[in-house]
Amino acid sequence: MTIARDHSPLVFTHRALPQRVRFGTGHAARNVASEISDAGALRVMLIASEAKLAMARTVTGSVEPALIWTDVVQHVPAAVAEAARVEAVRAGVDLIVSVGGGSTTGLAKAIALTTGIPIVAVPTTYAGSEATNVWGLTEGARKTTGVDDRVLPGAVVYDAELTLSLPVELSVTSGLNGVAHCVDSLWAPRADPINAALAAEGIRALATGLRGVVADPGGLAGREQAQFGAYLAAVAFASAGSGLHHKICHVLGGTYDLPHAQTHAIVLPYVTAFNVGAAPAAERAIARALDASDAVEGLDALRDDVGAPSALRDLGFDPDRIREAAEIILPQVPASNPRPVDLDSLQLLLGAAADGRSSETLRGR
Amino acid sequence: MTIARDHSPLVFTHRALPQRVRFGTGHAARNVASEISDAGALRVMLIASEAKLAMARTVTGSVEPALIWTDVVQHVPAAVAEAARVEAVRAGVDLIVSVGGGSTTGLAKAIALTTGIPIVAVPTTYAGSEATNVWGLTEGARKTTGVDDRVLPGAVVYDAELTLSLPVELSVTSGLNGVAHCVDSLWAPRADPINAALAAEGIRALATGLRGVVADPGGLAGREQAQFGAYLAAVAFASAGSGLHHKICHVLGGTYDLPHAQTHAIVLPYVTAFNVGAAPAAERAIARALDASDAVEGLDALRDDVGAPSALRDLGFDPDRIREAAEIILPQVPASNPRPVDLDSLQLLLGAAADGRSSETLRGR
Repeated sequence: MTIARDHSPLVFTHRALPQRVRFGTGHAARNVASEISDAGALRVMLIASEAKLAMARTVTGSVEPALIWTDVVQHVPAAVAEAARVEAVRAGVDLIVSVGGGSTTGLAKAIALTTGIPIVAVPTTYAGSEATNVWGLTEGARKTTGVDDRVLPGAVVYDAELTLSLPVELSVTSGLNGVAHCVDSLWAPRADPINAALAAEGIRALATGLRGVVADPGGLAGREQAQFGAYLAAVAFASAGSGLHHKICHVLGGTYDLPHAQTHAIVLPYVTAFNVGAAPAAERAIARALDASDAVEGLDALRDDVGAPSALRDLGFDPDRIREAAEIILPQVPASNPRPVDLDSLQLLLGAAADGRSSETLRGR
Repeated sequence: MTIARDHSPLVFTHRALPQRVRFGTGHAARNVASEISDAGALRVMLIASEAKLAMARTVTGSVEPALIWTDVVQHVPAAVAEAARVEAVRAGVDLIVSVGGGSTTGLAKAIALTTGIPIVAVPTTYAGSEATNVWGLTEGARKTTGVDDRVLPGAVVYDAELTLSLPVELSVTSGLNGVAHCVDSLWAPRADPINAALAAEGIRALATGLRGVVADPGGLAGREQAQFGAYLAAVAFASAGSGLHHKICHVLGGTYDLPHAQTHAIVLPYVTAFNVGAAPAAERAIARALDASDAVEGLDALRDDVGAPSALRDLGFDPDRIREAAEIILPQVPASNPRPVDLDSLQLLLGAAADGRSSETLRGR
């Protein structure tokens, strides 16, 4: 049962998405100009929140946008998306340049979804949305997501200078969310050895990068590595799909309103400890990427070094809800998980994560 | 100078090509049927050499091709390509299924180049052409190559059973050619850390796979890993371009008519020994992928284990031509090479490879 997840025998289908990524610290303006020129675009729509508009204007440099859109709202409300689409079409936009985090990229994707206008994404966080063909829209409390190749940005311009304003604490939790993307992609439903190779490199880059950001928040070397790792994490995760870790975190976030990135940062070592005994290739890959003799020890050392949050209780999670949470999570556990999951094991896992206890007791025997 | 090659700082542009790959030993017929059905193809052209036709018919299974083409010639003569195009258009072909090695895939690409007909490639060797957007045609002694996304097969179906007829010796040299693709992509002109991650996994898979093929030529586990490694090698190499190794082998093959795969198998450790002192990240990546403490020692151990050829002299290369060869190679050495190359160092390298001497003397001080 666990053998297929370790990719022996090799049975899988992998789909590589077409995208050009340009990495270069301090090169964003030049690289965006190249993309606009290569696309032969004449009427650019610039999307950036008010807070990021000044930065976005330096990135688009000498190009005068035909339309500037600053109404960027978390989770991409459908009404905002619709208004932006109408304006984009009215202005005859032939290329969208989005500068910002996940919500900004998300709005660009929502416009592309119905109009087919191509996107050049310029990320300023480690969200990773720019490297996927997944879109999301909300109407009231209801979130709809989907997969469509039209929303995949044709080009992404990465410049670590644009992440300098991301505070260290947010860099750490967002970066550990990236590590979770990588780790979970090793046993997610469409896990395959191509995703695994990218994920391993992603873990390595994020671990190096986050330690660098903490040691030198104003420096660029760490932020560059973290950004590269977050990109690889997004590619691997989008291809592999959600594994046990993301199903757990999705419930904790959706049902108990726990903050996204912090929740991921806390839950990751527990899911890893639970699974690795049944996934030896994944264990080795994580350990090797972290330069550790053991995957869980390597993750714990990284979390210690970067000062990650350690207990769900500290985020406001009430341990009395553990059984209820386990009951909601259980039916969503992917069949691909290397170790069988039941109500008891989920409660043990959530209990340890709630208190920030050692994950040692979760290991398979 | 060497720093950029080790990707620090991270400055690069990487383009991922859109392709679906399906791996599954014994699943070729089912996977090809899925691809034909998903494409909605009604008139399939099957390309396979006479020698591979029976195998190809089992792969296309219940689908009756609208056209079967068996005139497959090495290096894709332009006249053959033109004849095949005319027939494909006359038969109203809407999908090409190619079953065979590099020449068969190459003919399919030549048809796609002018007609835009999509390709499902089913490789039976480790050539790797199926994973690239490179095409080649010959007219007389003159070879033309080019890059065009239209020739990239939209889907590739890998089935290790189809490689069982590849003799062990050919598997070894062809597989080591794949290892050379991986190693050279670490310092080629478009080397980047994404290519490097895929190349490292390719080296690991090829090393495991080739040892497996030698230990159990009729078994599938080794052939499966070797095929997977050869795929990764092709992806990394197509993206990174030709490095020093391939420039040397290209001259040895083109000017002195040495056999392709064997030449690569012999030259690889010498180029590696020459470069690694100036490319520490590449050295570590190769060593780690080979589970060795040193890249060159790891390559030598692999070559010993699989019985690789060891001296260019044994292929008919006359050591009196070393200076001449060095003079032809020198102007083609990529500027990206981590260590400066001059006429003397090329002659030392070729001399050692001609005699099959230790590569130790080539290491940088």
